[in-house]
Amino acid sequence: MAPEPNEPSVMLPDKFKEECGVFAVHGHPEAANLAYLGLYALQHRGQESAGIVSSDGIRHFVERGMGLVSDIFTEDRIIKLAGSTAIGHNRYSTHGISQLKNTQPMAIEYSRGPLALAHNGNLINADTLRTKLEEEGSIFQSTMDSEVIIHLIAKSQGQRLQDKLVDALSQVEGAFSLAILGTNELIMARDVHGFRPLAMGRLGGAYVFASETCAFDLIDAEFIREVEPGEIIVVNDEGIYSYFPFGKGRQKCHCIVEFIYFARPDSNIFGANVHSIRKQFGRQLALEMPVKADVVIPVPDSGVVAALGYAEESGIPFDKGIIRNHYVGRTFIEPAQSIRHFGVKIKLNPIKELICGKSVVVVDDSIVRGTTSRKIIKMIRDAGAREVHVRISSPPTTHSCFYGIDTPTRTELIASTYSMAQICDYIEADSLAYLSVERMLSVQGERRDDFCKACFDGKYLVKTGVHDTQLALLDRDPV
Amino acid sequence: MAPEPNEPSVMLPDKFKEECGVFAVHGHPEAANLAYLGLYALQHRGQESAGIVSSDGIRHFVERGMGLVSDIFTEDRIIKLAGSTAIGHNRYSTHGISQLKNTQPMAIEYSRGPLALAHNGNLINADTLRTKLEEEGSIFQSTMDSEVIIHLIAKSQGQRLQDKLVDALSQVEGAFSLAILGTNELIMARDVHGFRPLAMGRLGGAYVFASETCAFDLIDAEFIREVEPGEIIVVNDEGIYSYFPFGKGRQKCHCIVEFIYFARPDSNIFGANVHSIRKQFGRQLALEMPVKADVVIPVPDSGVVAALGYAEESGIPFDKGIIRNHYVGRTFIEPAQSIRHFGVKIKLNPIKELICGKSVVVVDDSIVRGTTSRKIIKMIRDAGAREVHVRISSPPTTHSCFYGIDTPTRTELIASTYSMAQICDYIEADSLAYLSVERMLSVQGERRDDFCKACFDGKYLVKTGVHDTQLALLDRDPV
Amino acid sequence: MAPEPNEPSVMLPDKFKEECGVFAVHGHPEAANLAYLGLYALQHRGQESAGIVSSDGIRHFVERGMGLVSDIFTEDRIIKLAGSTAIGHNRYSTHGISQLKNTQPMAIEYSRGPLALAHNGNLINADTLRTKLEEEGSIFQSTMDSEVIIHLIAKSQGQRLQDKLVDALSQVEGAFSLAILGTNELIMARDVHGFRPLAMGRLGGAYVFASETCAFDLIDAEFIREVEPGEIIVVNDEGIYSYFPFGKGRQKCHCIVEFIYFARPDSNIFGANVHSIRKQFGRQLALEMPVKADVVIPVPDSGVVAALGYAEESGIPFDKGIIRNHYVGRTFIEPAQSIRHFGVKIKLNPIKELICGKSVVVVDDSIVRGTTSRKIIKMIRDAGAREVHVRISSPPTTHSCFYGIDTPTRTELIASTYSMAQICDYIEADSLAYLSVERMLSVQGERRDDFCKACFDGKYLVKTGVHDTQLALLDRDPV
Amino acid sequence: MAPEPNEPSVMLPDKFKEECGVFAVHGHPEAANLAYLGLYALQHRGQESAGIVSSDGIRHFVERGMGLVSDIFTEDRIIKLAGSTAIGHNRYSTHGISQLKNTQPMAIEYSRGPLALAHNGNLINADTLRTKLEEEGSIFQSTMDSEVIIHLIAKSQGQRLQDKLVDALSQVEGAFSLAILGTNELIMARDVHGFRPLAMGRLGGAYVFASETCAFDLIDAEFIREVEPGEIIVVNDEGIYSYFPFGKGRQKCHCIVEFIYFARPDSNIFGANVHSIRKQFGRQLALEMPVKADVVIPVPDSGVVAALGYAEESGIPFDKGIIRNHYVGRTFIEPAQSIRHFGVKIKLNPIKELICGKSVVVVDDSIVRGTTSRKIIKMIRDAGAREVHVRISSPPTTHSCFYGIDTPTRTELIASTYSMAQICDYIEADSLAYLSVERMLSVQGERRDDFCKACFDGKYLVKTGVHDTQLALLDRDPV
Repeated sequence: MAPEPNEPSVMLPDKFKEECGVFAVHGHPEAANLAYLGLYALQHRGQESAGIVSSDGIRHFVERGMGLVSDIFTEDRIIKLAGSTAIGHNRYSTHGISQLKNTQPMAIEYSRGPLALAHNGNLINADTLRTKLEEEGSIFQSTMDSEVIIHLIAKSQGQRLQDKLVDALSQVEGAFSLAILGTNELIMARDVHGFRPLAMGRLGGAYVFASETCAFDLIDAEFIREVEPGEIIVVNDEGIYSYFPFGKGRQKCHCIVEFIYFARPDSNIFGANVHSIRKQFGRQLALEMPVKADVVIPVPDSGVVAALGYAEESGIPFDKGIIRNHYVGRTFIEPAQSIRHFGVKIKLNPIKELICGKSVVVVDDSIVRGTTSRKIIKMIRDAGAREVHVRISSPPTTHSCFYGIDTPTRTELIASTYSMAQICDYIEADSLAYLSVERMLSVQGERRDDFCKACFDGKYLVKTGVHDTQLALLDRDPV
Repeated sequence: MAPEPNEPSVMLPDKFKEECGVFAVHGHPEAANLAYLGLYALQHRGQESAGIVSSDGIRHFVERGMGLVSDIFTEDRIIKLAGSTAIGHNRYSTHGISQLKNTQPMAIEYSRGPLALAHNGNLINADTLRTKLEEEGSIFQSTMDSEVIIHLIAKSQGQRLQDKLVDALSQVEGAFSLAILGTNELIMARDVHGFRPLAMGRLGGAYVFASETCAFDLIDAEFIREVEPGEIIVVNDEGIYSYFPFGKGRQKCHCIVEFIYFARPDSNIFGANVHSIRKQFGRQLALEMPVKADVVIPVPDSGVVAALGYAEESGIPFDKGIIRNHYVGRTFIEPAQSIRHFGVKIKLNPIKELICGKSVVVVDDSIVRGTTSRKIIKMIRDAGAREVHVRISSPPTTHSCFYGIDTPTRTELIASTYSMAQICDYIEADSLAYLSVERMLSVQGERRDDFCKACFDGKYLVKTGVHDTQLALLDRDPV
Repeated sequence: MAPEPNEPSVMLPDKFKEECGVFAVHGHPEAANLAYLGLYALQHRGQESAGIVSSDGIRHFVERGMGLVSDIFTEDRIIKLAGSTAIGHNRYSTHGISQLKNTQPMAIEYSRGPLALAHNGNLINADTLRTKLEEEGSIFQSTMDSEVIIHLIAKSQGQRLQDKLVDALSQVEGAFSLAILGTNELIMARDVHGFRPLAMGRLGGAYVFASETCAFDLIDAEFIREVEPGEIIVVNDEGIYSYFPFGKGRQKCHCIVEFIYFARPDSNIFGANVHSIRKQFGRQLALEMPVKADVVIPVPDSGVVAALGYAEESGIPFDKGIIRNHYVGRTFIEPAQSIRHFGVKIKLNPIKELICGKSVVVVDDSIVRGTTSRKIIKMIRDAGAREVHVRISSPPTTHSCFYGIDTPTRTELIASTYSMAQICDYIEADSLAYLSVERMLSVQGERRDDFCKACFDGKYLVKTGVHDTQLALLDRDPV
Repeated sequence: MAPEPNEPSVMLPDKFKEECGVFAVHGHPEAANLAYLGLYALQHRGQESAGIVSSDGIRHFVERGMGLVSDIFTEDRIIKLAGSTAIGHNRYSTHGISQLKNTQPMAIEYSRGPLALAHNGNLINADTLRTKLEEEGSIFQSTMDSEVIIHLIAKSQGQRLQDKLVDALSQVEGAFSLAILGTNELIMARDVHGFRPLAMGRLGGAYVFASETCAFDLIDAEFIREVEPGEIIVVNDEGIYSYFPFGKGRQKCHCIVEFIYFARPDSNIFGANVHSIRKQFGRQLALEMPVKADVVIPVPDSGVVAALGYAEESGIPFDKGIIRNHYVGRTFIEPAQSIRHFGVKIKLNPIKELICGKSVVVVDDSIVRGTTSRKIIKMIRDAGAREVHVRISSPPTTHSCFYGIDTPTRTELIASTYSMAQICDYIEADSLAYLSVERMLSVQGERRDDFCKACFDGKYLVKTGVHDTQLALLDRDPV
């Protein structure tokens, strides 16, 4: 039997983490307020830090900070963000030292004046490019891959900002949904494969852009369409225009994990509503992996929608068997010494009256390391469950992501090292089943071939520029 | 038709507010850590401020602050809380200026040394007692009614601390679940009617006390029994003993609203599990007030459990039709000028795909002013609902509370001024129905007469000591 | 030979410390601003904390903090101090834990409404009174002796505030210059012996009061006269009146140390200018204790004025031989390990070019423990001085103070334990001489009998109420 | 008559301002502590901000902040500064918005790893170089001229760090005393004219460098010699070596203002003790510009040393006629409305007893705008002076500085616009006299030709690279 996976810290959420949310608005007198609200709606895409850069057509105004959007942006700070154009960015939460210098949007002064950039996604050839730029004398201010784009723009001999940007983007490989704020214009760009979502909307005479449509709902903006893969959209005082400098028709690689976990249920991305797709995952799971049981309970909040689908399709009653404490503040002190092993109890508590003596189906959207699942199942057994059947509304996660999701390395992914039976043993479930890749894609209908599902099957559609060491990692199976 | 109720601030939660949570532990080397965790589990009972006072048998150590438990208590502050006995307190969120001086536990020095007190509940004769004490030269440090008890203790000629406490409590009227920390002992006390809950548990050799049992679950303590109405429990190094200095057998007045709204679903209070009772409210509501519809959706998170009960009993499918944003930070800036009327959108967003074209049953636990309900219903209609039927899992709230719930004054309670039809008109529902007092009590079985339900029927079981002006207010109907 | 005195911390200023500065103003639209400026001018009397309480005739407004006046009072805080009457207080710097709760003015609510008090001086029977009050049920909020006066006022059955105050003051013994702010009036009081200074002035139609006249200079107020020993002055909207409820003509006990060290040179106190008196101390010292030398250098800043007098009288040139660094911030980190024994170098550095090869007279105003003097003399020798003659412009400090100066205990006072020759040996001077008590008093002219000089001769004019243990301490000589 | 000069803000010190202090140490286990103490001793050279960068041979550790050294560097921050090599920097106080990004030492990552730089002085061709660098794609992080050197180093193809540095310095013009911290070595550099001071010392086996020798006194380091104009000194684990890549023997241009005002009296710079030179300025002034009077009083603290020289030479008694308040905190609130025109009273207060009826010589080191002098003289007259004679221990300041002193523009310099008589009228003195350039230089002996005195005579010895607009400014006389 394979060795025990390492125990992560109690508070480590055993989930993937998305890198960012992007928001932009051009031509609205309340640009900074809208950016604030947009970031607030996109808060789930990143809780480490957030920032807004606005422009009054001459200067840029920058406000960034660590923490939640609603904590960072006081009235004083929003008032300083003058002008009718703004871009904003949410960044995800790391476990190491959070650093203010890695906060986005990046904001610099270069030969043409102020420039700001907000980026969602990961560049896979960033290290190579950075080394080359530094050898030529460029001085980097952060450790973010996004800064490579900034330096490529600053060194480009292109005339207009969009020319410099196209010049820069022609050198990078990987995933990007970008908002660029120049002196007097807003430029949006999405990589040719469309890894990350990016939506366009309208609010009166102003244009707005956001990673997810839920940002439009909050500000009462109208969703127009998605920014297309490979599209560049320039918005300035002369109007708006779009072009495809790298051509069209490349293989689409929408990140399927957005549907499984990242995106808000009330958002529409990649042409569908997230809640509906997620619920269908649950229904398919019930059809593919049925079980006899008394009650379906979700792991809150990640498993709720799929659990509703599973319950409806299976006819087994749904109930909120586990209570989640939403009052976790900025820093939760893990008590020392004798009081330990809270496991997941800081966040979750089962309702014994509901579980005791029952056969329970526990639905979640994924298992990454397995340690949290193991604790939750133990907690449910301690509450008196007779049987615990675990159903996961996505396939086993076996591979790392290079395009913007902070997955653990392969050796930390339980499904890349353990067999299904071993995982079931490890988490101490009576049965365990995942949704298959086929059934997962089946609910996408016509779009079933437009998705990147590399974290489930290792088929990386875009490899160019990946470091040799990374490729070696991809090709080699963990022992 | 009656006039429009005043519009409250957007962010004002249109709900009752509980005053506090109380936690205490005696005889554990990690007393402060346990108090921290206990308060964390009781966070829903008060988010304005929190505090812990610990004792090493000689000195008291005090740490209090404004905000959430997990924000206030840094590792540094917890370490300062030395000793094996501690009491803690959560306080609810007001809308006015929050004041550090009103944070509990209160901690003072008097002739016998240090003394601390944590109080959940409201004293109805506090003003009268305060005036009398001040005239005799007592100097109050806060505006809290709880401070009256402190001064009565300090002035008492009783020998032991519990004698002084009994002396003090014999003079006050109203609701109290109290934790008192003396130099070398912990004293718990509950008023003779048992308005507020108070549970006793054991953790190894230590005794623990908490407003709700969910605090015991987090620290792995075993629930023993409730502290009984009128009971005084003294815990010190010699052991634990209990007595009833005011006699036993008085009319019980458990606050029914704890079941409807305040308490956490995973807690057991007043002899029952909150989730189970709350779900039965939903089932009774479906039986009493049925309606034909396509889907049952809860107002998150207040209506979820009752909605599950309603859906199960009625057979109409349950779904999460409204998404709640949990990322509200300390201060949410309400944007100015042109962007307005967010209504409830900052917190809630409907899933259009799920609601559009449907007849919807919306379940919530209460309507106080009606303004929030009105906005939610408008939001659901805007998402395309064909019909909106509102079902409330408690009776109409018509009267104010004097025993520890921060209800609006009667004139602000929509149900004390409007008829059912008028409320339905005002919130623009297709139909509106409440659970009746009879059905609400029916689910309590034998205990059906042990509850205070004055906010629904105006029958205040304890009036002694209420100010004349308050009494006048009670007797007179709003015009 | 007597044992070595203990080494105090490097940063411990080897000087007496005054307890406080008091400022008050009635009837000026800019009352808080004036109080701020007044406290700023009195900053030398206390750097630990400061506070202002203002009154608009109905409410009190309180702003207090730790640190320097100009750091505590931001514009925001001053604006909050509404009203045309205000009192302010500076408190001295302790070496233990500074506590916000011990900040003055004290501000409370009692049966008659808000009350605030600012106190300079020490009560010698405070402990006895406090114990009695606590036994009757009074709850103290601080550890300050001043709070006793507050409780005595609150318990008094007197009609008007001044009656209550007289009632309270008739029970206390010791030194006080007091400002009391009632709902609608300002009351100033000074103890019958006049230990601490208190001046009265006028600014337009407003009355101002301050510990020293330098506060009047800054706000362009005109000095009228001193508040007399035993005088009570009431200022309210009806006008100003003064009375002597405890009679007149008691033995005056002005603190001579105010002239030696505490007061600012530009102030006039006890009927004379401080700079002039201080310079005369230097002249008398030159007459009484002459020495042949090349240069007179002061210990900055404490010895400067006396050194000028000494130089003028002796004809030896004066020079600034030691530079003082004024940039000491809030917290100076004393570096660890290998870098040590800064001694006084953090603050002082000699100019070698000026000292090298010279016979130097070093003038200071006092020696308390002797440790700092020792370091300064070593520093001057290291800079190349041929001879170092120390001249002190006050008599040897042999006794502790009970009336408001924070002197060390007797055993820590080098002059109460060591002979003159031993001190000279200890500080490694070539010669050492002090000003005699007779010559010190001689410069006061007619007022020579109006001073308390107990710290030099142990003749405590007021003893009533001093604790037995304190008295024992006074009577017994250190071994 | 010429128009009135503009009134500057009350708190604006009417003096030149020095840009910075530099400190460096290599090879000492307490490097960060020494840097802290060195900066503390050099605090007078810059109070806006300070910073230290240390190196453990691999990484750099950076701590910078706004404010005073002793406020910025808490124990926590010093402990983070690991390693045995460190450089530190003090920056002067501007009146506009202070910006953290302009704090030094600058610290970056470039192709060869971490690099830090601390700079005292001004580059006169920085703007030209910056424009060129930006056009080639360099992105600047600050608005400091010092950053140009950083980018030139990063772009240099030189092999070793010192080669890159020489490459960079060969392109810049102006004044610099530099400390550069590489991965494993410390490099010191001083411009070929030696505008700013830079001293070398030894502490045990470690080398230390500082703008002034007073920093060595505090840490008990031994002064070896000055770093010579045009010298580059490299210190690393292999030892220390020095070279002159730009040749030797260029015209020396030591800033004479260091002697007049900037440097601490206890420092030795440019081969002489500052106190001695400054006192000689006073003596020469007495010889050149005598006056009959009763007392010599200095403007504190700037005029004290020269006043002592003046008094000694003239035989007129010296006295401290003006008291300075040293308790000015971070922010002094200037009170509004009716209380105004403090003038200099916030800082200075005269002793009336000393001045009243006297003929007074007031000595200061310079007059820049004249507004402060005017206020001080008014203050002295208000205190009753019969006559006020002003004597300035430097020549009239008529020209701006381009090499590191923040002088006002020429039109703001009262002496470049007004005649001597007009200035005397403006400041309302009975007589006014300055020290002549000849007498000022005479006290320097052999070194009399080694000084830059352009601010007094407009003879800029180094002009190359000065912008056309700047040159135009230099050549044209103000109208």
